[in-house]
Amino acid sequence: MPHKMSLEEAHQLATTILQKYGCDDENAKAVADTVIAAERDHAHSHGLFRIPGYVNVLKSGLVDGKARPTVRKLSPGVVQVNGHNCFAPLAQTAGKDALVEAARANGIAALALVGVHHFSALWRETEIIAEEGLACFAFTAYTPAVAPAGGNKPFFGTNPMSFAWPRSGQPPMVFDQASAAMARGDVQIAARDGKTVPLGTGITADGQPTTDPNEVLKGSMLTFGGYKGSAIALMIELLVGPLIGEAASFEAGARHNGDAGPPQGGELMLALDPARFGDPDGWADHAEAVFAELLSQDGVRLPGSRRQSYRAVTPTEGIEVADPLMDSLNALLNG
Amino acid sequence: MPHKMSLEEAHQLATTILQKYGCDDENAKAVADTVIAAERDHAHSHGLFRIPGYVNVLKSGLVDGKARPTVRKLSPGVVQVNGHNCFAPLAQTAGKDALVEAARANGIAALALVGVHHFSALWRETEIIAEEGLACFAFTAYTPAVAPAGGNKPFFGTNPMSFAWPRSGQPPMVFDQASAAMARGDVQIAARDGKTVPLGTGITADGQPTTDPNEVLKGSMLTFGGYKGSAIALMIELLVGPLIGEAASFEAGARHNGDAGPPQGGELMLALDPARFGDPDGWADHAEAVFAELLSQDGVRLPGSRRQSYRAVTPTEGIEVADPLMDSLNALLNG
Repeated sequence: MPHKMSLEEAHQLATTILQKYGCDDENAKAVADTVIAAERDHAHSHGLFRIPGYVNVLKSGLVDGKARPTVRKLSPGVVQVNGHNCFAPLAQTAGKDALVEAARANGIAALALVGVHHFSALWRETEIIAEEGLACFAFTAYTPAVAPAGGNKPFFGTNPMSFAWPRSGQPPMVFDQASAAMARGDVQIAARDGKTVPLGTGITADGQPTTDPNEVLKGSMLTFGGYKGSAIALMIELLVGPLIGEAASFEAGARHNGDAGPPQGGELMLALDPARFGDPDGWADHAEAVFAELLSQDGVRLPGSRRQSYRAVTPTEGIEVADPLMDSLNALLNG
Repeated sequence: MPHKMSLEEAHQLATTILQKYGCDDENAKAVADTVIAAERDHAHSHGLFRIPGYVNVLKSGLVDGKARPTVRKLSPGVVQVNGHNCFAPLAQTAGKDALVEAARANGIAALALVGVHHFSALWRETEIIAEEGLACFAFTAYTPAVAPAGGNKPFFGTNPMSFAWPRSGQPPMVFDQASAAMARGDVQIAARDGKTVPLGTGITADGQPTTDPNEVLKGSMLTFGGYKGSAIALMIELLVGPLIGEAASFEAGARHNGDAGPPQGGELMLALDPARFGDPDGWADHAEAVFAELLSQDGVRLPGSRRQSYRAVTPTEGIEVADPLMDSLNALLNG
């Protein structure tokens, strides 16, 4: 029977566990805020489900739960945050104001996060910037799991990209999508349940097409949309690796300690201020006209809208935590 | 029998036709440079093949072949070029120096092209910026041809996105890919040849899946990678529509005069200077290490490499123009 709890209780639970394994208040809060924002939106795969992974890298010392990120302006439009081995949300919080300020001053600005451990969803990060009235991109890599087009071995991380567009009076339009054709967690679930995965999800260790999720897990995942997704995955490697001076996925994988948790890596965010582009007074209404025309087609919804619809409910109704997860959280709490 | 000619002859042919239908020297040169760069790279669908379309919109007066784009700095990081109804390449040429300068000064900058008619390939535009040592994105929309995920009617243009990465001693890494699953020209060729197209290429006018290219042409194309390509297509609509104060595809379509040629629309380019990010001395070698690791897998090539390989050959060997195209070019020349 799933365990019911309020968002506040879930936040307290996450905070307590993170503190127990070495996070100070500030670090614990940044991660707990992120984890509970995911639970609030029923994005459970980035919610409490990730706490054991966060704990793994705290326990092994890979992540410093007491780190203080440092913010540096590299140029008028580029802000760098060095997380000094914190989890990404704290570094993102540390750099937010400088990114917003630089974007408003210049029309466009970048935030480069280095020395962070990214284990959260990008959509919340771009959404927070869009709530300031800016359009926002975010990119991050991970460790090799996805084969490039034409290849047969993992090279790319799942390499998500997120984009958020600001709206007045309602949450931003936000998407956040991996370059991988399917989330690794979903492949694992299919394997557990004895189901097949669609052709194109991945290949065997010999590079052969397969619908067997176990073979995909032993082989490689593939990118969405074939060579086009592969090009996007490569772009992301360049943006969060060489551009910002952090590790590409294959480098992050090589130096990772093997913990079932996030490696050290980087993230790039770009913020654009529509008030500094071509239509400072009209852009917001214009975008709403685009959304209205799009939504006039039956069956179409805006990216992120399903997630956002849960927000009306979970603050009062709370969330449910499945037994196996609750057991592992309790084990951490009492361990 | 295909007609052989040198790149210089092809450039002269394009220039002469464009001038005959109303382009002054400067406008004709910008378009001819773009068209012949495509021929040089065997990207024939953006080469001389497009000349009749360029002529259509010149003849109807939709495009001003004598336009002089105006350049305006909207903020320290944002340059706007108003093409005053020129073809996009001239506006891009007009804004290039200001974009490069702003990117070097700020680390990141944007170029918003408005009042242009875009009928060329984005890869050449991002490549030109990358040749200056900058990473570069470009986005553009068109007129509705592609249904959104869940929908059944055209809403998006084919909405390409390009990204280029600078390399020393060799051409940039460049990709340029439509949000549509297949190029419209390829669907038309399949229809002409009585072939089927893969499921997922498009839907019938009733919204049903089909492999019949004729039905796709009467219905809608679909995005690559399902809902993920659809999210990217929507992002592009927002970036080249509301953000920069130009038309989204559905608006460009509504105001287009019906010519078989490019509508008025916008384009957004973003340039990032790796020398102003986190690793000014190491980024170039680091990127080469990423490429080397990627290419160590059999069967993998860098995006754009096939196109670039033709450049070694066409300047000396020239190009071939198929008879039907040569006939229509001659008809324009003598018409």
